[in-house]
Amino acid sequence: MKKYTNIKDISNLKETIREAILLKMDPFEFQDLGKNKTLVMLFFNSSLRTRLSTEKAAKNLGMNVMILNVNDAWNLEFEDGTIMNANTSEHIKEAAQVISQYADIIAVRAFPSLTDKQKDESEFLLQSFIKYATVPIVNMESATAHPLQALADAITITELTEKANPKVVLSWAPHPKALPQAVANSFVEMMQNMDVDLTITHPEGYELSKEITKNTAINYKQEEALKNADFVYVKNWSSYNDYGKVLSQDKSWMMTKEKLGAAKFMHCLPVRRNVVVEDAVLDSESSVVIKQANNRTFAAQMVLKQILEDL
Amino acid sequence: MKKYTNIKDISNLKETIREAILLKMDPFEFQDLGKNKTLVMLFFNSSLRTRLSTEKAAKNLGMNVMILNVNDAWNLEFEDGTIMNANTSEHIKEAAQVISQYADIIAVRAFPSLTDKQKDESEFLLQSFIKYATVPIVNMESATAHPLQALADAITITELTEKANPKVVLSWAPHPKALPQAVANSFVEMMQNMDVDLTITHPEGYELSKEITKNTAINYKQEEALKNADFVYVKNWSSYNDYGKVLSQDKSWMMTKEKLGAAKFMHCLPVRRNVVVEDAVLDSESSVVIKQANNRTFAAQMVLKQILEDL
Amino acid sequence: MKKYTNIKDISNLKETIREAILLKMDPFEFQDLGKNKTLVMLFFNSSLRTRLSTEKAAKNLGMNVMILNVNDAWNLEFEDGTIMNANTSEHIKEAAQVISQYADIIAVRAFPSLTDKQKDESEFLLQSFIKYATVPIVNMESATAHPLQALADAITITELTEKANPKVVLSWAPHPKALPQAVANSFVEMMQNMDVDLTITHPEGYELSKEITKNTAINYKQEEALKNADFVYVKNWSSYNDYGKVLSQDKSWMMTKEKLGAAKFMHCLPVRRNVVVEDAVLDSESSVVIKQANNRTFAAQMVLKQILEDL
Repeated sequence: MKKYTNIKDISNLKETIREAILLKMDPFEFQDLGKNKTLVMLFFNSSLRTRLSTEKAAKNLGMNVMILNVNDAWNLEFEDGTIMNANTSEHIKEAAQVISQYADIIAVRAFPSLTDKQKDESEFLLQSFIKYATVPIVNMESATAHPLQALADAITITELTEKANPKVVLSWAPHPKALPQAVANSFVEMMQNMDVDLTITHPEGYELSKEITKNTAINYKQEEALKNADFVYVKNWSSYNDYGKVLSQDKSWMMTKEKLGAAKFMHCLPVRRNVVVEDAVLDSESSVVIKQANNRTFAAQMVLKQILEDL
Repeated sequence: MKKYTNIKDISNLKETIREAILLKMDPFEFQDLGKNKTLVMLFFNSSLRTRLSTEKAAKNLGMNVMILNVNDAWNLEFEDGTIMNANTSEHIKEAAQVISQYADIIAVRAFPSLTDKQKDESEFLLQSFIKYATVPIVNMESATAHPLQALADAITITELTEKANPKVVLSWAPHPKALPQAVANSFVEMMQNMDVDLTITHPEGYELSKEITKNTAINYKQEEALKNADFVYVKNWSSYNDYGKVLSQDKSWMMTKEKLGAAKFMHCLPVRRNVVVEDAVLDSESSVVIKQANNRTFAAQMVLKQILEDL
Repeated sequence: MKKYTNIKDISNLKETIREAILLKMDPFEFQDLGKNKTLVMLFFNSSLRTRLSTEKAAKNLGMNVMILNVNDAWNLEFEDGTIMNANTSEHIKEAAQVISQYADIIAVRAFPSLTDKQKDESEFLLQSFIKYATVPIVNMESATAHPLQALADAITITELTEKANPKVVLSWAPHPKALPQAVANSFVEMMQNMDVDLTITHPEGYELSKEITKNTAINYKQEEALKNADFVYVKNWSSYNDYGKVLSQDKSWMMTKEKLGAAKFMHCLPVRRNVVVEDAVLDSESSVVIKQANNRTFAAQMVLKQILEDL
C-alpha cells in the first residue's frame, strides 16, 4: 500500500479484514516490521479514539511515534504563489517535505470548514500532503473521508455477521452541531464494496454526495428503512446540498430500542446520548460501539502494516 | 494490586516502601514486566512532576506510554440519563470503556472544583473511571487524594529516619490561591499507617475532614506543634469546612529556618518561595523536597509494578 | 560534551561534522548508547522542526523522550529572593533540580522577549537551567543562539562544498514580524569557525551584536555582497541596536533567482514565500533548505551522542 487516504487504497479488502481479525489474537506478531520506523501524527483537529488507536497500532508494530498538534506550531499556507506577509508562516511545500525526512509514514487529521464546499471537496490539505510529502500519507479523517473508521466498521460487521448478505442501514440522527459527512461517506463506500444490502435513511435535504451514494437505496422513511435490518449504523451529518447547514434537529430520528429491533447498533463515537441514540440502546447487548472502537486499533495496524511492507 | 486510587490499595506498605528503596539502585530491573503493555495517562489538569515521574516510571518498567490532555479533545459527560444536547460530546461510559481497550492501565489526574463540596467529595470523575473502565485505574491526583505523592513521601521519610517513631508535623502555610486538600489528606492517611508520631497544625477554620484526621492530634499553635519535630511537611490547603475558601493569608504561618529547627523540611512542590517557606529553608541541607520529587518516580514504579504483576 | 548551549561547546568541529555525515548512512548505529537514557524536552515556545528532529535524533540513539510544553504546566520564577505571591508558582531552582532527576539530558527552547535587551542578552532562562540542573543542557533555541541549527548548517555547507574556502553570504530579508537574532548569531559564529569566506549584508540599523560579528565583513549593499557567492543564507532578524524593532520591510531585500545567481540558497525555515524569498528560488535546484532541515536530525544526534558518551 502506497498511501491510505481513501478506502479504494485497499487492494484486497476481504483479505485485509480477515488478517485484521487474526491480528487481534496476536497484536505483537509483526513487531519487527516497524523497528526503526517512525510514524509522525499531525493533528489539525482534536482527537481521542483516532489518536490513541493509531498510536497504539504503530507501537504494536514496533514503530516510533511522534505527535504534533500543528496549530500549536504555526499556520500553514496552502495556496501557490501567495505573498506570505499575513497569518501563515510556512508553506505546505516546505512543511510536507521537511516532515517527510523525519517520518517513514505521516498521518494527518484535518476536518472540513463546512462553509467552503468547493475547498472542502478538493481535500486541499490532504491532497497537498500527498503532493509534497515524500513518504506515504494516512488519512486520520479528512474533509470528506474517514477511511480508518470505515475499515474498523467493516471488520466489526464481518466479525458479527451470521448470515450471507446482511441488511445494513445507515440512519441519520439529530445533533445540535453541524458535523462533517466524512464518516457517512466512507461507511457508504466501504459497504458498497462488501457483501451487504445497504440502505440509507435520512430526512429530505440530507442526501450525501451522489458521487458517494451512486445506486445505493435511499429511503426517507426511517421506520421502513430499518425493517429487518441486521446492522444499523447511526450517524449525524450536516447537509451536503445546503452545505454545512443543520436543516433538522427532529428528535423523532433518534435511534431507540424499539426502532432498532433485533439489529446491532453501530456508531463511530463520540456519541451524544439521548440525542443521537437513547440510553437503552447504548446500554444493551445490541450496541457494538465499544467493539468498533477496539477495531480502530486493528484497522490502523493493518493499514500501517501494509504500508510498511511496501516501503 | 487491582487499582491505586487511595493509599488503602497498598496491601503491604512496609514491604512496598522497602522494595521502592531497593528499586532505586536498579530502576530497570523489571523492564520485561511492562513489555507490550500500555499506560494511558489522562490529564484533566496540568502537571509537571506527576506527568514526568509517572511516564518515567512506566518506561523504566518497559511500558509504552500514551498521553492525552483530555480538555484538548472534548468535554465528557458524567451524569446518567442526560440529554446530551449542550456542551458535552461524549459520556464517560463510552470514553472509559473505549480507552480501556487501548490501555493496560489508565492513570487519571483531575482536580476538585473547590466550589461544589459534595460533588468533589463524591470523587465523581475518578469513581466513574473506576466504574466504567475495564482496566486498573491509577490516581494521579484527584479531588480529595494524591496517593502517589503520599507514597513518595513515605519512601522519603523511611529513607531519612534515624530513630524509631519520629515526630512528623503537617504544618499549614499561607498561599494566594485556593488549593485542594488532596495532598494533605493523603499525607495524613499515609502517616497514620506508618510508625510515626503525627501532629497537624493550622489556623482555626482549616480543619481537614474528620474522616481523614480521625484521632490525629491537631494543634492550632504552630510553634508548639513544631517542637522536637523530626520532619515538617509544609502545605497550603483551602478551608474544608468553609469549602474552598481562603480564610487566612497570615504570613506568620510561613515556615522559617528558625521554626524548623533541626527537622527536615518536606513539601510536595511546586512551592512558592517566601510565601509558603523562606529561601533559607529551601536552600539549606534541611530541605528534602528534591529527594521527595525523585521518589515520585519510584512510588509510581512500585504501583505500576504491583498492578502489572496482577494483570 | 558536557552541555550544548553554544557552538563553542563543540570541541572538534571538523570531526563532528565528518561524523554527522557518516551517521546519515547508518542513523541507528549507536542505538545502544541511549538505552535507558531519557531526554526531557522543555518547550517555552512552539516548535516544529526542532521538536521533531531532536526527538527523532534521540530515538535514533535509543533514548526515551519525554516532552513538556512548560506553559501548559505553570509559570516559572527566575528571580532570586522574590516573594512568590503573584503569577509564578514554581522557582527554576526547584524545577531544574526536579526535572534533572527524571532526565539524563534536558533540552530547552525559550525565545527572547525582544523588549528587554539586557534580560535577553543575559540568557537568564537558559543560564538558570545550566546553573540549577544537574544534568547536561541542550539549547533548542534560546534568546540569542540556535546552535543546533548552526551545526546543521555547517553540515550542509560541508556536504555541498566543492571548492576550498567557499564564499558564504548572510543576507537579511524583510519580514512582517519582529524576529530574534538567534539564528543569525549562531550562523555567524559557526562560519567564523569554518574554512569559509563570510560576508554579512543587511540594511543599516540591522547590525548584529559586535561581540558576534567581530571582524566579519559587513556590506550594506546586498548586490555587491552577493557577488560570486557560493552559499547565500537568507534570514530576517529584528534590529539589535534599536532592540527588537522592525526598522525596514524593504521588499528590495527579498532574495530572487536573479540575485542568487549560481549560489546555493539556504534558510533555517519556516520561510515566508515571496516575502523573504521568491518562489522561483525555493522551487529551484539552488535551494538546499530541505537538506538543511534533514541535517537538523544529524546535528542533534551528534550533540546527544557526544553528551551521552560523556555521561
